[in-house]
Amino acid sequence: MSDTTQQENQLQDRLQTFSTVLQRGTLQQLRLMVNGLYPAEIAHLLESLPREKRTFVWELVDPDLQGDVLLDVNDDIRENLIQQMETSELLAASEGLEVDDLADFIQDLPDTVMQLVLQSMGTQDRHRLERVLSYPEDTAGGMMNTDTITVRPNNTIDVVLRYLRRSRTDIPVMTDYLYVVDRRNHYLGRIALTDLLTREPGIQIGELMDPEQHAIHADMSDTDVAALFEQRDLVSAPVVNDENELLGRITIDDVVDVIRDEAEHSLMSMAGLSEEDDMFAPVIASTRRRALWLGVNLITALLASWVIGLFDATIEKLVALAILMPIVASMGGIAGSQTLTIVIRGMALGQIGGSNAGRLIIKELAVGMLNGMLWAVVVAFVAIAWFQDYQLGIIIGAAIIINLVTAALAGATIPLVLKKIGADPALGGGVVLTTITDVIGFMTFLGLAALFLV
Amino acid sequence: MSDTTQQENQLQDRLQTFSTVLQRGTLQQLRLMVNGLYPAEIAHLLESLPREKRTFVWELVDPDLQGDVLLDVNDDIRENLIQQMETSELLAASEGLEVDDLADFIQDLPDTVMQLVLQSMGTQDRHRLERVLSYPEDTAGGMMNTDTITVRPNNTIDVVLRYLRRSRTDIPVMTDYLYVVDRRNHYLGRIALTDLLTREPGIQIGELMDPEQHAIHADMSDTDVAALFEQRDLVSAPVVNDENELLGRITIDDVVDVIRDEAEHSLMSMAGLSEEDDMFAPVIASTRRRALWLGVNLITALLASWVIGLFDATIEKLVALAILMPIVASMGGIAGSQTLTIVIRGMALGQIGGSNAGRLIIKELAVGMLNGMLWAVVVAFVAIAWFQDYQLGIIIGAAIIINLVTAALAGATIPLVLKKIGADPALGGGVVLTTITDVIGFMTFLGLAALFLV
Repeated sequence: MSDTTQQENQLQDRLQTFSTVLQRGTLQQLRLMVNGLYPAEIAHLLESLPREKRTFVWELVDPDLQGDVLLDVNDDIRENLIQQMETSELLAASEGLEVDDLADFIQDLPDTVMQLVLQSMGTQDRHRLERVLSYPEDTAGGMMNTDTITVRPNNTIDVVLRYLRRSRTDIPVMTDYLYVVDRRNHYLGRIALTDLLTREPGIQIGELMDPEQHAIHADMSDTDVAALFEQRDLVSAPVVNDENELLGRITIDDVVDVIRDEAEHSLMSMAGLSEEDDMFAPVIASTRRRALWLGVNLITALLASWVIGLFDATIEKLVALAILMPIVASMGGIAGSQTLTIVIRGMALGQIGGSNAGRLIIKELAVGMLNGMLWAVVVAFVAIAWFQDYQLGIIIGAAIIINLVTAALAGATIPLVLKKIGADPALGGGVVLTTITDVIGFMTFLGLAALFLV
Repeated sequence: MSDTTQQENQLQDRLQTFSTVLQRGTLQQLRLMVNGLYPAEIAHLLESLPREKRTFVWELVDPDLQGDVLLDVNDDIRENLIQQMETSELLAASEGLEVDDLADFIQDLPDTVMQLVLQSMGTQDRHRLERVLSYPEDTAGGMMNTDTITVRPNNTIDVVLRYLRRSRTDIPVMTDYLYVVDRRNHYLGRIALTDLLTREPGIQIGELMDPEQHAIHADMSDTDVAALFEQRDLVSAPVVNDENELLGRITIDDVVDVIRDEAEHSLMSMAGLSEEDDMFAPVIASTRRRALWLGVNLITALLASWVIGLFDATIEKLVALAILMPIVASMGGIAGSQTLTIVIRGMALGQIGGSNAGRLIIKELAVGMLNGMLWAVVVAFVAIAWFQDYQLGIIIGAAIIINLVTAALAGATIPLVLKKIGADPALGGGVVLTTITDVIGFMTFLGLAALFLV
């Protein structure tokens, strides 16, 4: 898909230039350079910097940019930067944020600062903020902004245009549609900005509006919202409550963040990591986080060792078993992780459910069986050539077939089971899988050897 | 971040409903249901269906939707569906596609059909298509559409509005800015649609336009384009050539596809898979694809076995070594894969380059050393308790420290080296890593035992 040798060029060039200025340039050059970037670019830069340089650069960021930058860095870094900031700086950073962003931001602030921010707001803004805060962060209600422009169906285009012209600084970015509501703020439909430009001024909004595009319910999950935006190529969409009252709107920029996080979540979770971790977190903090995962893995590794221990007498008699047994485990682990990855991704995309899970498991079992037979023959020949022992070859071949079929079954069912019990399908799937492929691999190989060989 | 137990509800509900209709409903119900969906929704559905159901549903899709659906399914399925289609169906599907989409589509068609499509186009459209086709698919030039609306700096708002009103069906979706060009089509700046709505009709475009937003060069890679859109919250952006001539524009919907593909690419590549694979590909095709990866893994597993084989006499004397050795390898594998995942993701985001790679490697080594010491103590105690052998405990502890430090070094440097030699940093990193942690793990543990214990 993408040519990786050139893909990061632009971003890395910037990182490089910045790094040079950081080392050799004057403070003034650095300040100009940093504040000439977009907030998300500053955030990206901060994430790329080791901690002490990060603190230094952060001090140079203009106070009126700091709020937006804080929203764009990952959770880990935001928490850390907020801790370093004075109350007055935090208040300054919160000013000028949009309501949806402020709702995310305020929850990370110390309680006292949060109270101050709320007090400094006007009644209407506070009311709006409270409405967004009443929904969880990962729902449409938590993602929405309250900057909608509404019109009535009996307004003419002319009236709307005059209204917009009077309040001209107030058309928010990413406004591609105005929303049509009745007198009690119930959502009726939407009208394209381009229609206002091109249609006759005397036409009533009601005649032009598109009532087909349903509003998003505030309770919809953020991943569902993202799927909707992706599949319908939306730039913005209205959000309503149970009574169909218009609460606000969601824009594509917030949806892109969800898509990015979601796709990275699978990648990071499979290694027991979080997408919100700071690459340059202090060594102690990183060690502690990763230790947990290593501890879980140790327990499963001990289980595998215990299985091997059951056959110590067998191994003592035929040391070739110890030499070959990692091959059986390793082939099972790789085959299983392929199935696991496919299923985790399919589930994240909402493409695997009760109606097709059975079919997928059967297909994966068939692939496992075929690849098992293929590699059983290859490994059997290698074993026979190496140790001049036909029976050993047959036994390792049989163990590989059994382990690859088990791996397919485990890889396909583990995420489904994890989801059923309410856990994250991506988290821990890999560790459970290798436990199974190790245990079954060692058990069948050594067990068959104990029965038939020694 | 997201609550996975509920996150796929909406998509899965639809899949479920659809599945029920597929089994029990009439053909007419099914046809209505399918063609009531957006093209991307039909594509999503097709990807979720086993092959024979997919072919059946595909036959029901309206011919004028088929082109857009084909663009949204993954490469594997597109190829397969195109093979099943008649020339006349393919011609019908290509009609009504936008130029950027047609450029993607036409490259998958058989040569004879491609010629027919080109012949059926008007000269101007063919000329536009050829312009898009002259850039690689993964560059701004290949992503762009040619549906730009351009204005001149000396036009007044009034003139522009009259022009738009006359050609009212022609404002393309996701038009948030018009582009300002000189008489020779050189890009000068952009003007917001909302400005046209709210500013005085007599003002000249030149006074209002934003010359700061630079156009994207047609050679920019798609990932750089995506980063730009993400960081600057763009909905659309102009594309120019070396001479600063306006060629077309890129819209956020195409960028979202790049972001999604890119994030999934890391996940799938690490397991030796491709994000374009069909979940329900035929068993033989899937077996063949995955066999390659298993073959690579077998070679590395044999290398590890060969290392164990060097110490067969040692193992024969002390079978506890065979029982414990997978623990050393496994802990190294997990620790290394955590570092590897962090580095691969950081590189995909363009956050790791020459200026901070050194710092990151040092940090990862420190984390590896600390976790190595922590788990060395734990595993040593377990080994001593199990086998009543103090020396064995010390040796396995030492091997774990060495292997976790090696794992950190390997995990951090493998993707950087892969990139340097022009390979995909995500592809194969996992296999190379486990080879290293297995070989080093077995080598140090068995080697130390051979030296000091037996």
